[in-house]
Amino acid sequence: MAGGKATVHLRQAYGDRRRVNDPPTTTRMTAHLMTIGDEILIGQIVDTNSAWMSRQLNLSGIAVMGKSSVGDLRQAIVAGIEHAATTAQIVIMTGGLGPTKDDITKSTLVEMFEGKLVFHQEVYDRIAAYFQKINRPVSTEMLRSQAMLPDKAIVLPNKVGTASGMWFERDGQVFISLPGVPFEMEYLMTHEVLPRLKARFVSRPIAHRTLQTACEGETVIAKRIEAFEDHLPDHIKLAYLPSLGLVRLRLSGNWPGEVTPDAESRLAAELETKKAELYALIPDLVFGEAEQSLQEVVGNLLRQQGKQFGTAESCTGGYVAHLITLVPGSSDYFPGSIVSYSYEMKSKLLGVKPSTLETFGAVSEEAVCEMAEGARVTLGVDVSLAISGIAGPGGGTPEKPVGTVWMAVSDGQRTQVARHIFGRDRAKNIQLTGVYALNMVRKFLLDQK
Amino acid sequence: MAGGKATVHLRQAYGDRRRVNDPPTTTRMTAHLMTIGDEILIGQIVDTNSAWMSRQLNLSGIAVMGKSSVGDLRQAIVAGIEHAATTAQIVIMTGGLGPTKDDITKSTLVEMFEGKLVFHQEVYDRIAAYFQKINRPVSTEMLRSQAMLPDKAIVLPNKVGTASGMWFERDGQVFISLPGVPFEMEYLMTHEVLPRLKARFVSRPIAHRTLQTACEGETVIAKRIEAFEDHLPDHIKLAYLPSLGLVRLRLSGNWPGEVTPDAESRLAAELETKKAELYALIPDLVFGEAEQSLQEVVGNLLRQQGKQFGTAESCTGGYVAHLITLVPGSSDYFPGSIVSYSYEMKSKLLGVKPSTLETFGAVSEEAVCEMAEGARVTLGVDVSLAISGIAGPGGGTPEKPVGTVWMAVSDGQRTQVARHIFGRDRAKNIQLTGVYALNMVRKFLLDQK
Repeated sequence: MAGGKATVHLRQAYGDRRRVNDPPTTTRMTAHLMTIGDEILIGQIVDTNSAWMSRQLNLSGIAVMGKSSVGDLRQAIVAGIEHAATTAQIVIMTGGLGPTKDDITKSTLVEMFEGKLVFHQEVYDRIAAYFQKINRPVSTEMLRSQAMLPDKAIVLPNKVGTASGMWFERDGQVFISLPGVPFEMEYLMTHEVLPRLKARFVSRPIAHRTLQTACEGETVIAKRIEAFEDHLPDHIKLAYLPSLGLVRLRLSGNWPGEVTPDAESRLAAELETKKAELYALIPDLVFGEAEQSLQEVVGNLLRQQGKQFGTAESCTGGYVAHLITLVPGSSDYFPGSIVSYSYEMKSKLLGVKPSTLETFGAVSEEAVCEMAEGARVTLGVDVSLAISGIAGPGGGTPEKPVGTVWMAVSDGQRTQVARHIFGRDRAKNIQLTGVYALNMVRKFLLDQK
Repeated sequence: MAGGKATVHLRQAYGDRRRVNDPPTTTRMTAHLMTIGDEILIGQIVDTNSAWMSRQLNLSGIAVMGKSSVGDLRQAIVAGIEHAATTAQIVIMTGGLGPTKDDITKSTLVEMFEGKLVFHQEVYDRIAAYFQKINRPVSTEMLRSQAMLPDKAIVLPNKVGTASGMWFERDGQVFISLPGVPFEMEYLMTHEVLPRLKARFVSRPIAHRTLQTACEGETVIAKRIEAFEDHLPDHIKLAYLPSLGLVRLRLSGNWPGEVTPDAESRLAAELETKKAELYALIPDLVFGEAEQSLQEVVGNLLRQQGKQFGTAESCTGGYVAHLITLVPGSSDYFPGSIVSYSYEMKSKLLGVKPSTLETFGAVSEEAVCEMAEGARVTLGVDVSLAISGIAGPGGGTPEKPVGTVWMAVSDGQRTQVARHIFGRDRAKNIQLTGVYALNMVRKFLLDQK
């Protein structure tokens, strides 16, 4: 497992995107996503909404053909919507709603669709009840303004906020307006928009299966599964979804033939078969399915095996303990961790021999193995992980360049140790070390090499 | 400092965006940002490039009027560019370059601007040297393809990658194409695009000053500085830039009068005065300037005061130690940390009395004070921070709801303790605790209440 050059990992970081096998196709229903609001244009916030919406729409079989952002200006909103309507059948807008925005989107839509605002008592009551529940005062004026909605729109009730969603139609096209607050948008997409779009536009079964891989780049994975990918039938696509140190492989199937009553179950069975074939090609790389994180998988293994686990961390400074404890219920198998940043703490709390540190340095096979042993004893755990490295940007030497990281996993009987050389970026080195270390623990628990 | 309801913090998290005082105005030069590539449309990656570009353009006095994304399709790219050109004077494209994309953007631009591809020896040589430097093989074919560039474009040399930037002009409008890899885009923006745009389009001095605040929401801050904000001259704008638990306040000045030789220094002086006035209104909230992080500020104070610092963490599971050690050189003042997730570790490693845990529970003033004292002794540090809380989603009780967090800072003489009640989201609770705890350490070191 040792080795791995900086450049390789940098390419992993950004993904080499050599293969994007899930392009929008015109045989599917199409959507355009539009954000409204100055805060996106001045770079005040990063638009995470539209990436989430794209994934959900794709999972529902709707292709996103384009995205756009405009400011809180009437003429920009109108021009944006008209342009969007030339690119797709469904236009979904987020933002620009609510009393603090002077309801610019709402009044613009009323004008565009030649309607008027009408009062909705049920919306008024729901928002009033909502404010009562969260114990915050609200003015009648604000309630009234939020309850005035366009007569030409189907109102999409927002149970987690104040701005209602709106659904307009014109010449067979659909225009949807949603609030920009992420959890309100997600609530309305999940409970109102996607079910309605699927019922209206998606007539064929669609299914997905995802395998998650760690510690290998797209290029290598692509080579190992090339024949599989080349022989996929036309109605099943494979997408590579990379993030730092990880690549998710998503199989998406669109039922190709006549929609029979058993179409859904047959498509599901076909995808299960393909998933199993894909897994069989890279069993050493796959750590989980769907949205599981590496720390959840490790946590499940520890719980199944009834083992207690702890870490001794130097260059990661507690980052791996942080990942482990992001999982709810991790206290079942994780009593704690020692962050031994200094030589003194390595000796005092983990019993690393001063002579080891003097002779080999803290970033060495010898030191990291003693740290693992010390963590096991000090924390009273069955399995321990130790990490010592040079996160950078300073501290490198010709023999131990910045990015050099030693890690060891031990249960007292068996100790596995590995060295990696990551890149020059401190934050990325810490993150990559987290991925590689958790994957090493996973393999140790599974008794894989 | 105790208190703070979940809803307040959720609003802080997303920002209430009541005031966005930095809207694009038509008196400034205008830009449109366009991303090219399917990976954005399928939600494979979040578009962080355009938020960064927006901030840089705004800082340079160029207003972003709109953004858009299109897929790797010739007709979509052409339609996107033509639409973008109706919204702004400058169109900046990212992505869709490089041999793995079949150079779709480049060939589309050649067509649009009615030119042809010509060979650039200097580009060929630079890319060949680049591959040699990073020690990776490269084919002559690939080098040649990357060195073929449109004759109608000014080539913007990319010294950190293979795809050159391109600058086209048509009827007084500028069209710029950049690679989509973040650090390549940032390199080209910083070294080529922004200097050229400023020289070409921005004739008036512009300056910015930023103050960073922690642990207070926009609404409260806005109220405290209302009079200041209302009396700002027209040529100075204030923007609120919120993130979880933090709000940056950015003052931006555009020189209003005739451009005299001393205009730049006079604008700078004026902004310094305004920054000082702003600071004087909220000295208790401001922790730093510009892009400083809370952990950097705390680290600087520790270094100045020659103090060693360590943490004892329960619900944050090492997250604060991780933040502290994200700062290069933190080993100067940070020997380590104890993550005591279990009762046993709290007693064994930190000397918390079992009777304290039995009587008051681990999430209590008594336990967290003993943890702070124990950390100081065990880690041998001058100042320690201890944290114990219920991150959720499980484990809450009516008296100690999910989101309850106790924190203590101690130097042996003096111990400060605080309780906060955050929200229901585990990951957000951990992050907010990190902000509040580091700010508490900062104030402790400054001897502020």
